[in-house]
Order: sequence, then C-alpha cells, then structure tokens
Amino acid sequence: MPNWLLPENIADVLPSEARKIEDLRRVFLDHFRLYGYELVMPPLLEYIESLLTGAGQDMNLRTFKLVDQISGRTMGVRADMTTQVARIDAHLLNRSSVTRLCYAGNVLHTKPSGLHATREPIQIGAEIYGHAGLEADAEIQELVIACLRLAGIEQVRLDLCHVGVLRAILETDPLAKQQENILFALLESKDIPSIKSVSEGFSPEVRRALQVLPTLYGDVSVITRARKELPNLGGVMSALSELEYLANLVGNDKVTIDLADLRGYHYHSGVMFSAFVPGLPNAVARGGRYDHVGEAFGRSRPATGFSLDLRELARLMPVAERKGAIRAPWSRDAGLLSKIAALRSEGEVVIQNLPGHENEQDEFDCNRVVVFDGEQWILQNVG
Amino acid sequence: MPNWLLPENIADVLPSEARKIEDLRRVFLDHFRLYGYELVMPPLLEYIESLLTGAGQDMNLRTFKLVDQISGRTMGVRADMTTQVARIDAHLLNRSSVTRLCYAGNVLHTKPSGLHATREPIQIGAEIYGHAGLEADAEIQELVIACLRLAGIEQVRLDLCHVGVLRAILETDPLAKQQENILFALLESKDIPSIKSVSEGFSPEVRRALQVLPTLYGDVSVITRARKELPNLGGVMSALSELEYLANLVGNDKVTIDLADLRGYHYHSGVMFSAFVPGLPNAVARGGRYDHVGEAFGRSRPATGFSLDLRELARLMPVAERKGAIRAPWSRDAGLLSKIAALRSEGEVVIQNLPGHENEQDEFDCNRVVVFDGEQWILQNVG
Repeated sequence: MPNWLLPENIADVLPSEARKIEDLRRVFLDHFRLYGYELVMPPLLEYIESLLTGAGQDMNLRTFKLVDQISGRTMGVRADMTTQVARIDAHLLNRSSVTRLCYAGNVLHTKPSGLHATREPIQIGAEIYGHAGLEADAEIQELVIACLRLAGIEQVRLDLCHVGVLRAILETDPLAKQQENILFALLESKDIPSIKSVSEGFSPEVRRALQVLPTLYGDVSVITRARKELPNLGGVMSALSELEYLANLVGNDKVTIDLADLRGYHYHSGVMFSAFVPGLPNAVARGGRYDHVGEAFGRSRPATGFSLDLRELARLMPVAERKGAIRAPWSRDAGLLSKIAALRSEGEVVIQNLPGHENEQDEFDCNRVVVFDGEQWILQNVG
Repeated sequence: MPNWLLPENIADVLPSEARKIEDLRRVFLDHFRLYGYELVMPPLLEYIESLLTGAGQDMNLRTFKLVDQISGRTMGVRADMTTQVARIDAHLLNRSSVTRLCYAGNVLHTKPSGLHATREPIQIGAEIYGHAGLEADAEIQELVIACLRLAGIEQVRLDLCHVGVLRAILETDPLAKQQENILFALLESKDIPSIKSVSEGFSPEVRRALQVLPTLYGDVSVITRARKELPNLGGVMSALSELEYLANLVGNDKVTIDLADLRGYHYHSGVMFSAFVPGLPNAVARGGRYDHVGEAFGRSRPATGFSLDLRELARLMPVAERKGAIRAPWSRDAGLLSKIAALRSEGEVVIQNLPGHENEQDEFDCNRVVVFDGEQWILQNVG
C-alpha cells in the first residue's frame, strides 16, 4: 500500500475547502461573541471516566481509547465536546450566574456515522448554563438561524421535538417503560407495524399513543392535533405547551414539529431541535436541553445549546471568489520591499517570485505585478 | 479520584487565554495569506507508516498509537504536522511550481517535553516547497519576525545554525561518523569534557573541530572565526557562506550564530534557526530546511519552513483589554430586537438578560444598558 494513503473516512482538507471552513469558523465564533458567548478550548484527551460520564454506550463505542504513559490510566480522544464544556462550566468556572460558552475543535470517531461520513468532524457550538426557562432555548435557536444566515443560508427550518412527550407516556406503563430503548428506535424510524407488535401487552392508551406519535409531524398545527390525540397527561401537555411557546418565539413560519424525532433522547431533558437547510438531507445542526449534564461533575445546572460540523456545512458553501493577487520580483531593493509591505498592509496578497521560478503558473489569481518604471516601483495590470 | 481531573500536562483553555490564542491564530494565518501561503488541514489521525515516514525514533515514541477498527491497522495521532503538510505537497497537490502552504492545529504527545510542557501544543506554521535557494529560507525567517511583531513582540532574535558543518566534519572520519548520534547530543549540551573522551580515537583534525564547535556561538563575527578554526572542508565552507548570506538578508543585527545548536539535526538538511523573544528561555519558534522530506512520498522537493506553539506564545501576551459590552433586557419587543441587532452589526457585544438573572454579576464588562425611554430603546451608560 502506498504510504500516502489515508485511513477510510479520514481526509486532508485542501486549500479551497480549508478556506471555506476557516471563514465559517470565524463567522460563527465572532457572532457567538456578539451575543456574549465566551470561547473555551477543552483538550483532545481526557481520562475516560470524565469524557464518558453520563454518556451512553453509543458514545463509548465511538471513542478511541489510549493508555496514558504517565498514569497508566485509560484516556479517550473526544468524540464530542458537549460534556467537556459542561465540565468546564461546572467545575472550572463554577459561576452561579448565567454562563454562555462556545467552542470549536476537531473530534474523532472510531467509526463513521454513515458510509460517506467523516470520522473527524470539526465541531462548533454554543451553550447556555444556568437558565431553565425557554428564553435560553429561544436564544440558542435564534443564534443558529442568525449564524447560518451570515453564512449565506437564508432558508433554515427548525424541526422541534420534546423528550417529555414520550417519557410521560411511558411513565404510565411499567411494561412499556422497560421497552424504552426499542421503542424510541422504532419511533425514530416511524416503523408503525413493529410498534404495534412490540406494544401488544401495553395498556390500550399507551399502545394507541405510540402508534399516533409517528404521525404527529408537520407545521405547528401538529401541536393542536397532538393535544387531542395523545393521552391527557400532565407531562405531555406541558411539553406541548413548551413547544408552542418556543415555536411562537422563534417564528411559526420557520418551525416544523416532529414528535417522533427522538435522536438524542437519552441525554436530552426537554426541547430538542434539528436545523435543516436546502441541499443537505440530514440536519445541519442539532441541539436542545440537557439539564442533568453537569450532575456527574458535582453541579447540576440547567443547560441548553447546539452544535454542528463545519466540514459538512462548508460543503454547501460556494467556493470563495479569488481576490486578485499581486506578483513581485525577488530583490532586496529597499524601495521594492517598502512597496510590498505597503500593499500587504492594505490587505493585498503579494507573492514574491523566488529566483528561477518567475514563469510558473500561479495558483493564486495574480492579476497585477509590481514593476520598476525607471523611477519607482509601481503596480501594473496583467493582460 | 474526582472525575473532573484532567491527565497530567493536559489542560482546558479558559476564556481569557482562549481569546489570546484565537487572536494570535488569526494574526498568523492572515499574515501567511498576505504572503501567498495557502491553508491546508491535515487529519489528526493517519496510518503510522505515513505519519512516521522519515521521522526518527524520538517522534515514534512521542506518538500515540491506535487501532483502526475499520482496517485493523495501526494509526497514530499526529505529534507534528510538518510531515503531513509535506505529504499534501508531494502527493495531493503535486504541483511543479513553488508552493506555499500553512497550517494550524492541535497535536498530541505521549510525554511532555519538559516538566511543565503541555502534551497538546497548538502548532501553527508555514512551508515553502520547490525552491532550493536561500531566498526561500529568508522569506520564512522574515515571516516569523513579521508575525511576532504583529503579535506585539518587537525584539526577536534568530539563532542560526547549519547541519552541513557537523556532517562535513564527520564525513572525513568513519569512526566519528559511527558516533554521530552521541556526538550531536553532546554538542547540543556543549559538553566538551565528554566530547574529548568520546573522540579519543578520531583523527586529530576532527577531534579538534568537535571541541571547537561548542565555542562557536555569538554574533555574526562567529562565521569569520569558524572559517579560521574549523577544517577547510568544502561542506564546512559552503555552509558558513550560506549562513553569512542569510544573516545579511535577514539583518545582521537580528541574528546570532550557534554552530552547535543541532536540535532537529536528523531531519534537517541545511540552515536551521530558532527564534528567541524576551520572556521565554526556550525558542518560541523553530524552523529550517529539510529537502528530503517529500522523498518518502515519492517526490523529493526542496522544502523549508517553521512552526511554533500558539499556547506557549499566548502566555507572553498581555490579557486582551475588555471592550465594554452592553446589557439588554429580555423581551420580544420588535423595537428592542432591532436595536440589539443594529448594535451587534456595529460589532458591539450585547448580552440579553435571561428572566430572573437581571442582577447577576457580569463576566463581561457591561458598561452600558439598553433601556426604553418611553418612546424608544436607547443606550445608557452605567454608573
């Protein structure tokens, strides 16, 4: 095998793509800052106990394990940064006030989530800790929409869900509760025949509700339908009210509801959302509330946030227009050097020809050259 | 053990530090671009064969190994990005022209290089491929000085060395050549007594040269001294001429010479340099020529470049001045929302109070608030 071959689902990012990712990264981080989010950088490696605390088996399998040669303990390479940032809020910052944090960094997965998925997403996200009200969820959702708009994507649709609906239904039937894991997978794939067969021994009310749930998706009118068709349980009704309130805050025209979209059901604790944009079949960003996340670090704080993969988002972006660059000859002439410095300080890309390489093809679009007109160094257009 | 404890020599970067690192990262990448360097992003993981190709045993021991669950092959987490970028130049881009590439990313080390050294440096660097002349080395050195100056560090000293000096001397004595590894370690620590004892059986000329080398450091006049005191070999003399030429290009006042500073002796092939700045005992940046680096990927190209650790550099930076931020109440009032949007589009940080958290301590320095004066939303200074 040639030694330049990379592992499957691992790739270099070449200049045109790298530039898009870097631009998006700055758009997001700068906008996070305008909302008062502070940047933190958790490490690539942690002891497995802290990295996987509260995380499901799924995250465990997705995490590369390493032996720490200093302590002999097992470390993991982060497969997700959310828990790390919660740890920073809970332990390191330890503030009692509302805290807004954001982050951007590469994560690694042992196996790709799909055939063409990367094993090294570039995760970027923002989190609010310390406020349990829906206003925090609304701010996060507004932030997602604003950032995607700044990236040039006008049409963003938020698909809302709430873990409280299924939880409240299952609470009423211990038999159903036992099958929680199977049920939420079936609901996510909207597999009604299998739901029917799994739920045979359940109470009639729960059984009916489970079959109705996969049909409850569409615009906000779904909430009204759900109020009629789902059992009249306190947990269900308050979850529906939360969804209604939030859809109103964000704007009913930007929102759809899917009560069976339960990805992240295990670690979320309230409203969840997925952001969809034209050109990508899967959600471009996901987020939601996970109030218990800090518990394992000794400090349970309300928490809500979102994250996305910059690598995937960048694929939607058009290639950046090449701004014309400037070629300059190689010489130590003081006049030339100060001309070059002046052009660069105006933001111009100036590439000095290295001796013997004057006639090489440009990768930059060099549409101007610096030449000496007999008296001074001037800029000249290239045909 | 508490589960928020991080492994030794691994740390979170908290907001004030993270901001400094992010600012420096942008200063460097933007300046690289103005010189025509294109950004690439190599992966965190590669098969060990490509990651360690041409690298010494030292790099092997420093690299974390993982099993690829897809192929069963051994992968390594990058401990250095230089070889990766050379692979991109040699194989992926495969241009015949001069190519300028830059990169920034986290690397991991199994063990810290010193007691307080991080095991996760943030490496940033720039490389020129395809030009064997010293002009390329001069450009790289100029770039280092320019970037550090933009970061606020005016006093940069470049310490130059050349692997050709020691290589040419050892070539003349097979016995000395056999002891190359031991000798270059002794030379680096300027351990003259040990050099004396190791070199006992060497030819008198080589033995004398090895004892002189550790004394050949100081300003550029060292070159003149070296011409007199070192054996008159072709390789030695041409290396000294290269150093002289380069010191002239960069500016003799910014340069010192240390002919025994041989860090990186194994993979470098010509001039090497270390950049020193006030406040850091160790070099803040290192670089040099390693023309053979692309060979292992089937394409030997002249190459020269530099890299540094942003985390270490950031420690030298003063904490960024906190620009005043603005507090705004939480409300969906359209007038308020458009006032907030307008302020943010002017670059102001506007933090909306979440209900119930109005009286909390700011982490941002909020010196203004948005208030309603009965007619419109206005900005008001805070006491």
